[in-house]
Amino acid sequence: MEERVLVGVVMGSEKDLKVMKECGQVLERLGVPHETSIASTHRTPERVAEYARSAQERGLQVIIAGAGKAAHLAGTIASHTLLPVIGVPLTGSPLNGLDALLSTVQMPGGIPVATVDIDGARNAAVLAAEILALSHPDVRERLQAYRRELGRTVGGNGGTPR
Amino acid sequence: MEERVLVGVVMGSEKDLKVMKECGQVLERLGVPHETSIASTHRTPERVAEYARSAQERGLQVIIAGAGKAAHLAGTIASHTLLPVIGVPLTGSPLNGLDALLSTVQMPGGIPVATVDIDGARNAAVLAAEILALSHPDVRERLQAYRRELGRTVGGNGGTPR
Amino acid sequence: MEERVLVGVVMGSEKDLKVMKECGQVLERLGVPHETSIASTHRTPERVAEYARSAQERGLQVIIAGAGKAAHLAGTIASHTLLPVIGVPLTGSPLNGLDALLSTVQMPGGIPVATVDIDGARNAAVLAAEILALSHPDVRERLQAYRRELGRTVGGNGGTPR
Amino acid sequence: MEERVLVGVVMGSEKDLKVMKECGQVLERLGVPHETSIASTHRTPERVAEYARSAQERGLQVIIAGAGKAAHLAGTIASHTLLPVIGVPLTGSPLNGLDALLSTVQMPGGIPVATVDIDGARNAAVLAAEILALSHPDVRERLQAYRRELGRTVGGNGGTPR
Amino acid sequence: MEERVLVGVVMGSEKDLKVMKECGQVLERLGVPHETSIASTHRTPERVAEYARSAQERGLQVIIAGAGKAAHLAGTIASHTLLPVIGVPLTGSPLNGLDALLSTVQMPGGIPVATVDIDGARNAAVLAAEILALSHPDVRERLQAYRRELGRTVGGNGGTPR
Amino acid sequence: MEERVLVGVVMGSEKDLKVMKECGQVLERLGVPHETSIASTHRTPERVAEYARSAQERGLQVIIAGAGKAAHLAGTIASHTLLPVIGVPLTGSPLNGLDALLSTVQMPGGIPVATVDIDGARNAAVLAAEILALSHPDVRERLQAYRRELGRTVGGNGGTPR
Amino acid sequence: MEERVLVGVVMGSEKDLKVMKECGQVLERLGVPHETSIASTHRTPERVAEYARSAQERGLQVIIAGAGKAAHLAGTIASHTLLPVIGVPLTGSPLNGLDALLSTVQMPGGIPVATVDIDGARNAAVLAAEILALSHPDVRERLQAYRRELGRTVGGNGGTPR
Amino acid sequence: MEERVLVGVVMGSEKDLKVMKECGQVLERLGVPHETSIASTHRTPERVAEYARSAQERGLQVIIAGAGKAAHLAGTIASHTLLPVIGVPLTGSPLNGLDALLSTVQMPGGIPVATVDIDGARNAAVLAAEILALSHPDVRERLQAYRRELGRTVGGNGGTPR
Repeated sequence: MEERVLVGVVMGSEKDLKVMKECGQVLERLGVPHETSIASTHRTPERVAEYARSAQERGLQVIIAGAGKAAHLAGTIASHTLLPVIGVPLTGSPLNGLDALLSTVQMPGGIPVATVDIDGARNAAVLAAEILALSHPDVRERLQAYRRELGRTVGGNGGTPR
Repeated sequence: MEERVLVGVVMGSEKDLKVMKECGQVLERLGVPHETSIASTHRTPERVAEYARSAQERGLQVIIAGAGKAAHLAGTIASHTLLPVIGVPLTGSPLNGLDALLSTVQMPGGIPVATVDIDGARNAAVLAAEILALSHPDVRERLQAYRRELGRTVGGNGGTPR
Repeated sequence: MEERVLVGVVMGSEKDLKVMKECGQVLERLGVPHETSIASTHRTPERVAEYARSAQERGLQVIIAGAGKAAHLAGTIASHTLLPVIGVPLTGSPLNGLDALLSTVQMPGGIPVATVDIDGARNAAVLAAEILALSHPDVRERLQAYRRELGRTVGGNGGTPR
Repeated sequence: MEERVLVGVVMGSEKDLKVMKECGQVLERLGVPHETSIASTHRTPERVAEYARSAQERGLQVIIAGAGKAAHLAGTIASHTLLPVIGVPLTGSPLNGLDALLSTVQMPGGIPVATVDIDGARNAAVLAAEILALSHPDVRERLQAYRRELGRTVGGNGGTPR
Repeated sequence: MEERVLVGVVMGSEKDLKVMKECGQVLERLGVPHETSIASTHRTPERVAEYARSAQERGLQVIIAGAGKAAHLAGTIASHTLLPVIGVPLTGSPLNGLDALLSTVQMPGGIPVATVDIDGARNAAVLAAEILALSHPDVRERLQAYRRELGRTVGGNGGTPR
Repeated sequence: MEERVLVGVVMGSEKDLKVMKECGQVLERLGVPHETSIASTHRTPERVAEYARSAQERGLQVIIAGAGKAAHLAGTIASHTLLPVIGVPLTGSPLNGLDALLSTVQMPGGIPVATVDIDGARNAAVLAAEILALSHPDVRERLQAYRRELGRTVGGNGGTPR
Repeated sequence: MEERVLVGVVMGSEKDLKVMKECGQVLERLGVPHETSIASTHRTPERVAEYARSAQERGLQVIIAGAGKAAHLAGTIASHTLLPVIGVPLTGSPLNGLDALLSTVQMPGGIPVATVDIDGARNAAVLAAEILALSHPDVRERLQAYRRELGRTVGGNGGTPR
Repeated sequence: MEERVLVGVVMGSEKDLKVMKECGQVLERLGVPHETSIASTHRTPERVAEYARSAQERGLQVIIAGAGKAAHLAGTIASHTLLPVIGVPLTGSPLNGLDALLSTVQMPGGIPVATVDIDGARNAAVLAAEILALSHPDVRERLQAYRRELGRTVGGNGGTPR
């Protein structure tokens, strides 16, 4: 098949799929070829490093990484690649994702992680599509349709008395 | 001149330049043509909307927005464009940037802001360059050089007894 | 009908009605004509701007805006009107409304949002009535009755041994 | 003189003037007659109660209360009057105003305090003026001028390359 | 009966009894005559002031006040009496008692509230008993028994292998 | 001299005197005989236990304990005595006293610590005096004078236009 | 039997077993002889002190202490022994373990507690085993097997398209 | 030389030495041979991995890692070795070390980091020595002396009136 995988979605454990599967659903809808992998920074560090280092030559253009607690996955991947890395802080600890948010976003100078909202798998996918849309006009078109629909689903009709 | 501006750096007030000027310095160094503007979501909302709506046709590919307190700038811009928007939460309030971080990153589903660390102007610039590098090989090369240098400046030589 | 709508209640999404409908109930009871609209800062920014800009000439005197997460709705409306804007930070994110509180209340100098408690739809309605009561004596009277009843429903009889 | 005092600015201690004096400066500029008092909820509770109970008949239309730490001043005043009460949470404790913010904004149902940003004396004054502008056209005019100037002072010229 | 009420337990609303009734149970057990009242700082401010001002001459020696959100009850009572006032911050808001804790404990200099743990009705009762025990030997004795039993109910037998 | 020491002020280290010396100054002024000791829960645990266990028979009636960071001092003392123990959470760590506050106030059921505001040495002394005043009429009188003066020093004259 | 107990697991109350029993399960699996005890810093301080002081001569090499709220157990034990003490902050209060985390980790200089994640009984056991593995080669081997299995259970196969 | 390095102290950047040098000072004093290295998880990930993987065969027994912001250094090292890893969360970001604390301590199950207090370089060194003391009697002796001196430097003489 001619469709090259452009976005890699990675998460630390199988149970993160509950939230992270929304990435796949949105990317699907926006027509962005993607793959999903499980790899833990802490339990399978070599696999994560290998994944990140090979990503660019495998043709990936964006990596989305979701992790909870001391969420190092996105940052670790970012340290091994120059591709844009999007981090999704996940809930699941007693601190309800505040730990994951700070662990994901507060990166040291020079190695950014593009962080989205806690459990924001959907926003990660849209952001990936926005990045790809810069050079993939078809993705841009689907994004435009998606955004228009967002506006419509807000429903309501501003200013109309109840 | 043939050099098209690719990145727009926006901030809410003149005083944000103290932190945000680092965006320009890093983009300069990475050879990314950029512009810097002051526009406040709350004080000049039309200007912000106009800026965001016209960004794509003016040739911008990425927008970086820095703001403090109830930092709405990045989110407002994101609501008016499909370009990737990078948000830099700024310190400057008594809550030291925690308010700006949450106001920037916790976007509703469908309108992402790629958030970097508090006062992370430098990371915003690197992230913008990573996005542009997907279609600008020269930016990629400069990014690689930049990253290598980062590694060197860490100094130290691992494992050597003091 | 002669009854002009005085208070506009706006919220970002249909699901916010679960909390925000209490605004309507209290305004109803205090005899304040009002309307309820759905409009999202991020998904329908033009609609929000249009709503805010036209509010005064449509006769509104107070706007109540409820939103969660990076709650920009009240602030955005405030930037487009000189009417008093009351913000209701809503729960619904993993941070339980702390994000919405800071995004609503920490406005930059010059563009205030009158913020009430998290999920405080009821207080928003009472505050709107207090503002209107300054020039609507009938609203003041109903407010007085409401307040007296509040006192009574506290029940208990101070100082009485159990 | 015919000019009736419309806004009462109250604060818990002399040292709060450092921040709260900005209320007076902005009200002055917006042409809103006002008074400033020192009265502590905890140290002079009777004075605060008396102040609040007599406010309306003395002709006040809005009360602004600034306090730090366990900031009860605005809430206590609100419990004694039906006038709109604006609360300014002040820094000055080791928690840097987070304690004052929560103590001011998290009011129980039925007794709202219109809370502005931490140390937000300026926003409190603007909010008071917005409320008064509903029935004082001259205040509205001055507010409009003030807002236009705000926009101008943002400086910068959106979209212009640096 | 000759038994004078020594401890007044006050709370802002009927629903606080769910937690606060534990005060009564523990005071009962420690043989401390007490009364329970409902009075809200914000909804019935006069009743609270009256309660506090009359407490000493009615023979109370300690007052326990439980409240949630912007918990001003204990502080307000403390401002009207020289009796020791114990504050119990209650959960019940989206911030889970952090707001009540800060509103209760962060009192300004000169008007202390003896704050116990969030929802700590039991500790409030024990603290009241410790204060009374200074001049009521029978309360001390019952406290000693209570403390011994506490130690026993920890169960376990330290240092014994499982 | 016939004056029995009634209040023991303990702190974890010499440097805490900077804040805690205010306890002594206020107790002095209120005519409460007291002593000041340095004893660290963690560095001199036996001394702390011994201090607490012997306090009552040495005639102490209230113990004030000030500590920072993981502030265990007040809690540890409380576990060794039935005297009322007042805890003063101290700043001095990067978390600015939030750690000390939670470590002091969140005691398990049955072993209360009467916690005052962060760095609240003054309030600790006043609370101790309020407790002693229950059986020492002279302390009550001095407390009354102190409270009256507090009211006066608030200065300002409520309701007077500026 | 020749198997000397090497790790002591202590917790403040029976109900902590719900989380803390995982320590035993993991230590079991790693072949580390251990014991479990219940002893509360606050309710049975002598027992805790005695436990800690005798630990080393009883042959223990590591102590794991789990506690919630103002979690002093680990710190108190650490003050009575030179053995490494591992602290497990437990949830169970309205602050969801943030109080326990700060009370456990923020120890003063000189008396460390090796703190693991909130409710991290499993990590405490692994850390104890890592310490013991330095002188117990069989524990090291079992740890290696455990770690390998951890990697396998992450499942997923990195880089494979979905 | 016969003295084998037992503890490796690693930090992310030269500027961390300001705090982390205290590790070296304390280890020196406790007679623990150690080395200090600079290696950043994000800027020199291979160096960190290599350092961690080779640590055990190079004879290290404990690794101390200090890092700020999204502090991944300790966790990354822990994922590459079975040696006990001690994490020191460092201040230096606007969040004052809270980000570093959560990023260090909230490790996923199976890969613990023994976390000490924020900027707790001294406690990290003492903890390392406690671990080594299990098999190095000379370290234990020096630790005992160190602890005794700690007690003495608390100064004060418990229970002595001022």
